[in-house]
Amino acid sequence: AILASIDAALHSAERPLVGRHVIVTSGPTREPIDPARFLSNRSSGKQGHAIAAAAARAGAQVTLVSGPVEIADPPGVTVRHVETALEMLAAVEAALPADIFIGAAAVADWRIEPAPDKIKKQPGGAPPTLVLRENPDILALVARRESERPALVVGFAAETRDVIANAQEKLARKGCDLIVANDVSAASGVFGGDANEVRLVGADGVESWPRLDKSEVAARLVARLAERLGATAEPVR
Amino acid sequence: AILASIDAALHSAERPLVGRHVIVTSGPTREPIDPARFLSNRSSGKQGHAIAAAAARAGAQVTLVSGPVEIADPPGVTVRHVETALEMLAAVEAALPADIFIGAAAVADWRIEPAPDKIKKQPGGAPPTLVLRENPDILALVARRESERPALVVGFAAETRDVIANAQEKLARKGCDLIVANDVSAASGVFGGDANEVRLVGADGVESWPRLDKSEVAARLVARLAERLGATAEPVR
Repeated sequence: AILASIDAALHSAERPLVGRHVIVTSGPTREPIDPARFLSNRSSGKQGHAIAAAAARAGAQVTLVSGPVEIADPPGVTVRHVETALEMLAAVEAALPADIFIGAAAVADWRIEPAPDKIKKQPGGAPPTLVLRENPDILALVARRESERPALVVGFAAETRDVIANAQEKLARKGCDLIVANDVSAASGVFGGDANEVRLVGADGVESWPRLDKSEVAARLVARLAERLGATAEPVR
Repeated sequence: AILASIDAALHSAERPLVGRHVIVTSGPTREPIDPARFLSNRSSGKQGHAIAAAAARAGAQVTLVSGPVEIADPPGVTVRHVETALEMLAAVEAALPADIFIGAAAVADWRIEPAPDKIKKQPGGAPPTLVLRENPDILALVARRESERPALVVGFAAETRDVIANAQEKLARKGCDLIVANDVSAASGVFGGDANEVRLVGADGVESWPRLDKSEVAARLVARLAERLGATAEPVR
């Protein structure tokens, strides 16, 4: 019994998320304009997929809801492939309840009422105007749920300027527990690259990490979340 | 000398584009909205890349101008990687003169004056309106050149309805020699798929091919173009 306790303690130190369910969103969303065209963004999914893999290594049951990416599904993770923000929201809601939600996807803020047929260019005519409709805010909807609100809700803020101020405003407005903020200006090389330089912005302050490989950012983030979660409620499942 | 002539004849039957320069465009273009977001389309580049590979196998010197695709550069082909329609046009013009131009890329009809910083969603505010500007029509610009107009200019028409009528109108309006028309409605599975069902629309009529692997469409198209070119001018280089 003593040996079993020691073993369980060691086990839980290495795999602190055993028994926990973690939902991670990753990649861009793709919003159709017509059957051929779409609006999207440069998110590669590398950071979100690395977080899903790190959470699985930490013992969690992981549901990864991924937009269209060129990278492989991480091992040991349940992957739901989606295209649009509306599909991503539905997949996240279907995956609840969870202990931790990490919204690493670059969800399109707007969608376009898609045309049923390919829009034809009218020779000599004016270009069409695309009227955008606001997409649901998946992070805020998860963070502000009255039922099945995960104990930890983590968002990402991809900024090109005023990184910390924008992240603090986002933290308050969306009602989440932590924002992972990074600079995605073209000069940073973060979009599509293998490294990331992030700041963890919480109600209790800002923690700045050096430039790290995205897999190392993922491992550190999962360790931090496991610490925070350790003091909180029982697993949801 | 007799054997050399026989060898040359056999050689030219198998490699009918020896000494010819062929420019192929392939893939989508990606038009930036801001540093993160872009407008694009579902073209995989599979058909254009297959045509470039087939032209190289037929002995041509091939320049492939490719938008962002997930597939590998074909062997034996000079590849110019571009992102936007304006970059594609510049790369095509830099590659001229050519005996054949094949515009298989799905060039974005419109671009957006990109914002220098990431567009911020204004909480409670109206979504932004994207005002589109018409992109240059690469196919028409090549087909209507006064100097260095390739002997054969071939366009593609990706249609979701009225495939032949739209292709005939496109042939006349753009001034090209041949349109390869296909149905890219969602039901066709052409976008991203490995098969294609095309019609060759020329001033002299319409030829319909059965559903074929994209590599077979490419080989047949290159053979047809070599036949047409055989009767025309000397190689440009």
